Amino acid sequence: MAIRFEILARTSTNRARCGRVTTPHGVFDTPAFMPVATAAAMKGVLPSQVRDCGAQIILNNAFHLLVRVGVERMRTFGGSHRLMRWDGPMLTDSGGYQAYSMSDINRVDEEGVTFRSFVDGSLVRLGPRESMAIQNAIGADIIMAFDDCPPSPRGDPEPSGEAPTSGPTTSRRPTADPERYRQRVLAALDRTARWLEACVVHHAHPDRQALFGIVQGGTDLGLRERSVGQVCGIDLPGYAIGGVAVGEGTDEIRRVVEFTAPLLPDSKPRYLMGVGYERDIAMAVAAGVDMFDCVLPTRNGRNGYAFTPNGPLRLRNACHTLDLGPLDPGCDCVACGGGFSRAYLRHLFMADEMLGPMLVTLHNLRHYQRLMLDIRKAITDDAWSSFLRAWPVVGGTPEHPDAAPALS
Amino acid sequence: MAIRFEILARTSTNRARCGRVTTPHGVFDTPAFMPVATAAAMKGVLPSQVRDCGAQIILNNAFHLLVRVGVERMRTFGGSHRLMRWDGPMLTDSGGYQAYSMSDINRVDEEGVTFRSFVDGSLVRLGPRESMAIQNAIGADIIMAFDDCPPSPRGDPEPSGEAPTSGPTTSRRPTADPERYRQRVLAALDRTARWLEACVVHHAHPDRQALFGIVQGGTDLGLRERSVGQVCGIDLPGYAIGGVAVGEGTDEIRRVVEFTAPLLPDSKPRYLMGVGYERDIAMAVAAGVDMFDCVLPTRNGRNGYAFTPNGPLRLRNACHTLDLGPLDPGCDCVACGGGFSRAYLRHLFMADEMLGPMLVTLHNLRHYQRLMLDIRKAITDDAWSSFLRAWPVVGGTPEHPDAAPALS
Repeated sequence: MAIRFEILARTSTNRARCGRVTTPHGVFDTPAFMPVATAAAMKGVLPSQVRDCGAQIILNNAFHLLVRVGVERMRTFGGSHRLMRWDGPMLTDSGGYQAYSMSDINRVDEEGVTFRSFVDGSLVRLGPRESMAIQNAIGADIIMAFDDCPPSPRGDPEPSGEAPTSGPTTSRRPTADPERYRQRVLAALDRTARWLEACVVHHAHPDRQALFGIVQGGTDLGLRERSVGQVCGIDLPGYAIGGVAVGEGTDEIRRVVEFTAPLLPDSKPRYLMGVGYERDIAMAVAAGVDMFDCVLPTRNGRNGYAFTPNGPLRLRNACHTLDLGPLDPGCDCVACGGGFSRAYLRHLFMADEMLGPMLVTLHNLRHYQRLMLDIRKAITDDAWSSFLRAWPVVGGTPEHPDAAPALS
Repeated sequence: MAIRFEILARTSTNRARCGRVTTPHGVFDTPAFMPVATAAAMKGVLPSQVRDCGAQIILNNAFHLLVRVGVERMRTFGGSHRLMRWDGPMLTDSGGYQAYSMSDINRVDEEGVTFRSFVDGSLVRLGPRESMAIQNAIGADIIMAFDDCPPSPRGDPEPSGEAPTSGPTTSRRPTADPERYRQRVLAALDRTARWLEACVVHHAHPDRQALFGIVQGGTDLGLRERSVGQVCGIDLPGYAIGGVAVGEGTDEIRRVVEFTAPLLPDSKPRYLMGVGYERDIAMAVAAGVDMFDCVLPTRNGRNGYAFTPNGPLRLRNACHTLDLGPLDPGCDCVACGGGFSRAYLRHLFMADEMLGPMLVTLHNLRHYQRLMLDIRKAITDDAWSSFLRAWPVVGGTPEHPDAAPALS
């Protein structure tokens, strides 16, 4: 097996567990939050700074690297670790989600999807075989099965990758009819199961890249259970919950995750894809999830949205104009520990200085890693309720006067 | 006096000298190159990274900080050192150059200029009194006299600050008529002399901020001599050569600098404003200049233009697509020393990833500081010709196949 997973502690009050995953590029502690380096680059952050924020594993997007670099050139580069100078653990998603959500889909058939490249307009083919080829070339320690992503019942999904400028999905519009939606999800599930078998066949490096299967099923718990049976029927190093946080609310995320996570094998890492806000992460950890990724700390950071344990700050707001205090007095990030004030950060955003996005991204990355540190400590100490008290934002009651609904 | 200048070595073959300037915020070695942090922020670079590049002194622009922050708020912030977290020596320009080159000038009179803010369209007044007020509030160790900037005979100047989006200069268009040009420069000279006296009167902190005078005169050596007499007639801690590199070619820059620099007091630092390319810096050092600033390393870096001792590289060029070598094998910057390849940097620029501008800016900043280190060593060792051989780009004969004319 390419990875080894050890569970080191469990709480007595919920399903949370604390563990360690050993990969060919080193170890990461769980529950883990993986920052997203979409096109083999963390936006505005050097790899050494990612490491300094406490992140032990990062994510690359196979879709973006397929379209921008391609399999052959990625092989020439010797993989993404070498290309982007990140020597730690890495995970790649399969590209399926982005192909569905960010491209003009030209055709979907039993072998995969054909879409137009957002870079040069050329036709690109992506299915289980091609996804394994690019993910093998990228060389991440954990790679994801290529799955069929049904649309959200609520509307267009919020992409978990960085959205390029491209047209909306044309051929897979969401539907409001529940039975029709269920049929589409069901068809996607069965295709996902067939594609997972194809991924296993085409995966060239099972010895050094761990392939995770992805459970789909939307918000229908019966379909989730069916998907668990299909996906976990194949013995894999880990399993993910996909199709969550694609437009539904916190309560629906909770319902799906609390139902699905315990159905996944206890001895394998469980990865909740594309989630998310602190409260959703804490809820999922309590349900037994071990791994998370999201663009929120980086994307929102670039927009002047700073996370704090008491809720977010929007740095363009005038209330920060003369505020010489840090974003978060309890934070030890480059911005807070370095003495950069809210007033200065606001000035940077108002003056369109790239140092603003850089500093707030560094802060947000550290914020998420501090959250995960506290979560792991709470599990080791079996002190979940103390953790909840220390992180008001997790309880869904932000206290800060500048708190506001999340950016869409 | 706010600063102390010691000359430590001279060459036997030209007028170059190596020295040290002691300021309230520490020491910098000369000849020095000062990177530009226009609005109290180095674009894409943290202060600690600026320091790591070897820069000992940086520049802020009074114009941008007047328009974006203002005198009162800058006082509240306790000055720019504290605001931007740079604890080393700092220099501010007077804002006059930017007011002339970047704004819709509304009026010029004996007390200064009135222009429209590029931020909110409000009328802003800037003269010797206002320039001293904002520069005193910023608190730089070296501040510049507010001078009257005549237009270049060749056309619109290349701004030495970061250009905001604003209309062109409306009321001070360049003229092709030599005698008319001379009369305008002459009037500007005499006004500059009167304004210098006003700056001395209004400067509130001569004990901790060294005021430098600026010699103007365009490309007319007689006018340069007249200006030297006027400006150096006032005993100041240092003197600058202004109005150079505003559109004229290398040969004209050389003619003006080689004539003017030796006329300035030998015992005071000489600062050539807004220059520039490596060959121009080397020429000016050989003529006896001690201080330089320019946006080239930062601005060009953001555009994928990397400086090397053999000439520049343009990273968007296809020749770098598969090049796994560093920008400059002799460079120890974060990009080159960190193993980031030309192929990766090109990928970042093609994918519009901000890490590309960040890494090439860091490289360019280090390139300029390595140039200055080698210049200082050449002076100390009295080995100017060895220096010229080690830096082909200084000789004006770039050897690299990717070399190309400078960005405008």
